[in-house]
Amino acid sequence: MHTLVAVVDPDVILTHALGTLRMVLEYLGTVAFAISGAVAASRRRMDLVGAVVLAGLVAVGGGTMRDLLLRQPVFWIENPTLVLVAIATALAIAPFARRRDLGALARHRIVEHSDAAGLAIFVVIGTGIALDAGASPVAAMIVGVVNGVGGGILRDLFAAQVPEVFWNGQLYATAALGGAFALWALWAAGAPAEVVFWVPLLVILVLRTLSLRRGWGVPSVAVVQKRELQTESHA
Amino acid sequence: MHTLVAVVDPDVILTHALGTLRMVLEYLGTVAFAISGAVAASRRRMDLVGAVVLAGLVAVGGGTMRDLLLRQPVFWIENPTLVLVAIATALAIAPFARRRDLGALARHRIVEHSDAAGLAIFVVIGTGIALDAGASPVAAMIVGVVNGVGGGILRDLFAAQVPEVFWNGQLYATAALGGAFALWALWAAGAPAEVVFWVPLLVILVLRTLSLRRGWGVPSVAVVQKRELQTESHA
Amino acid sequence: MHTLVAVVDPDVILTHALGTLRMVLEYLGTVAFAISGAVAASRRRMDLVGAVVLAGLVAVGGGTMRDLLLRQPVFWIENPTLVLVAIATALAIAPFARRRDLGALARHRIVEHSDAAGLAIFVVIGTGIALDAGASPVAAMIVGVVNGVGGGILRDLFAAQVPEVFWNGQLYATAALGGAFALWALWAAGAPAEVVFWVPLLVILVLRTLSLRRGWGVPSVAVVQKRELQTESHA
Repeated sequence: MHTLVAVVDPDVILTHALGTLRMVLEYLGTVAFAISGAVAASRRRMDLVGAVVLAGLVAVGGGTMRDLLLRQPVFWIENPTLVLVAIATALAIAPFARRRDLGALARHRIVEHSDAAGLAIFVVIGTGIALDAGASPVAAMIVGVVNGVGGGILRDLFAAQVPEVFWNGQLYATAALGGAFALWALWAAGAPAEVVFWVPLLVILVLRTLSLRRGWGVPSVAVVQKRELQTESHA
Repeated sequence: MHTLVAVVDPDVILTHALGTLRMVLEYLGTVAFAISGAVAASRRRMDLVGAVVLAGLVAVGGGTMRDLLLRQPVFWIENPTLVLVAIATALAIAPFARRRDLGALARHRIVEHSDAAGLAIFVVIGTGIALDAGASPVAAMIVGVVNGVGGGILRDLFAAQVPEVFWNGQLYATAALGGAFALWALWAAGAPAEVVFWVPLLVILVLRTLSLRRGWGVPSVAVVQKRELQTESHA
Repeated sequence: MHTLVAVVDPDVILTHALGTLRMVLEYLGTVAFAISGAVAASRRRMDLVGAVVLAGLVAVGGGTMRDLLLRQPVFWIENPTLVLVAIATALAIAPFARRRDLGALARHRIVEHSDAAGLAIFVVIGTGIALDAGASPVAAMIVGVVNGVGGGILRDLFAAQVPEVFWNGQLYATAALGGAFALWALWAAGAPAEVVFWVPLLVILVLRTLSLRRGWGVPSVAVVQKRELQTESHA
């Protein structure tokens, strides 16, 4: 009886719906992250081991750094579901990666938006966990951004390349920081838990979309005259 | 009297012999790992500092990652013996590294088999420690593989190269995974401790030898047409 | 009254003065480290995100590794002051980095000596914390050296380059090791806390200065004949 009442209660329905949405976003993001890892492996002419490892690294690297920095149990040691999702993604696309360059897949609008969803959800989760763990506001924002972008950075490091997030001039880490800041501000203002979770997530998605569709970005710090070096450095 | 009886007991003799063998394999593996680090340093035209650091990294990098992931005390903080073995190895071969390329030494059959022994022993130790620490089976296997191959990956990262284990197409991380899986299966089936330790170790050694001598390997995920890029990427 | 007496006491004045000097050195070192990070970002044609991240990494990367290895709370999670100093430094010099190469700034005598001060103070702090945490002498020295040079290594890794400390042939990690050894020796001999702190710091500063001004250094392990490769490898 209690269960029936609970299901009918609109608040509970909302909570369930949001919980499901959160899980969908986590899985979507993980798949998009894993695709970027497998594609990077293919472009660097790795073998299946490299593809699987890079896919896994992008998917859980940021969360692992978060847990190490906060001295909490590393999340996938107990529950490796997201690792398995990433590995399955890599194994699924590996055969196609041999036949043609999958850059187009990685830049597909669906994958790009899934990646933005992953960025948003992981930044929000990371910032929230850090604040709960007693981190200072600045540190919590940094941990949140690391949670979102750390995996991609590891992917590029293991591919012996300058991490893309450091030079592509898009709003990515910056969008993450905007969301982390919004989360801290709402949290400090005592906003309800749903607001603290979903508003920053939307902030990140909107900033990321504005960067992809309108070209919003951050300035370069490279010396302006030597434009010709750019291709060489990040080739 | 008790000691005498103990020594005569065949079970105890076996335990002592296996304990000694395990230690011999750990030292052999550490020396081989350190050689690969010092040789990589020489090839990247580093100085003695680079040779010593890379040798140490290959030797204890994987175990350090294992301990961080499992939130256990980092093993060499209390007992730095293996670090010292690695440093001594680097210092011993550094003078020769200046006179000629030591690639032939790193590829010498004795060094290759010592490296395989190191891989095998460290994967088995890592997987066992992870299972004891309550990691899920998948996570324990990952931690075990990281324990075995993590040091070599760090060596290549610090040499600004794509880690060899991600692209050389050999059974290496894969051999490690096979051993880690065997260990988990035997452990879950309740096999005796000696079997859980030594059978997976042999699995790794056999797979690794088959890869080195028979060319067994894993497929590439690189786009097939652009063969000419390979030399460039991993030069 | 008590306060007045305390201020007049010469021992207390010395303690205050040394405490202030220590803080000045920490800040100077952090600014110099951050400059090296921002300059590296500019040279690798990164954007403002890269400059800020690399500056922050050099400044707190070594201390973060120290805390992870010793399983202590990561120092900037609670108090992010040094991170903010590094970020402010990067933001301050970024506009200039766009107009001309700041290599001359990074090699300026004031910046070089501030960098040496940072190296010295962070090695001494790291070795001391490690000994207090019960690390073995060898491990404490390694942790101290990592505390001093780890940030610069991360900077170079994230710039996809072989860490400079591994190949430039200067006394840098070696100067750090000399200081860490002196600290352990004085600590083991029961010297007063001020001596244990400041003498090793001076040892590092002197060794570093001798390297910069007199060319003292460590030998290469590169094969001697192939000098022409050097430019290529570390270009």
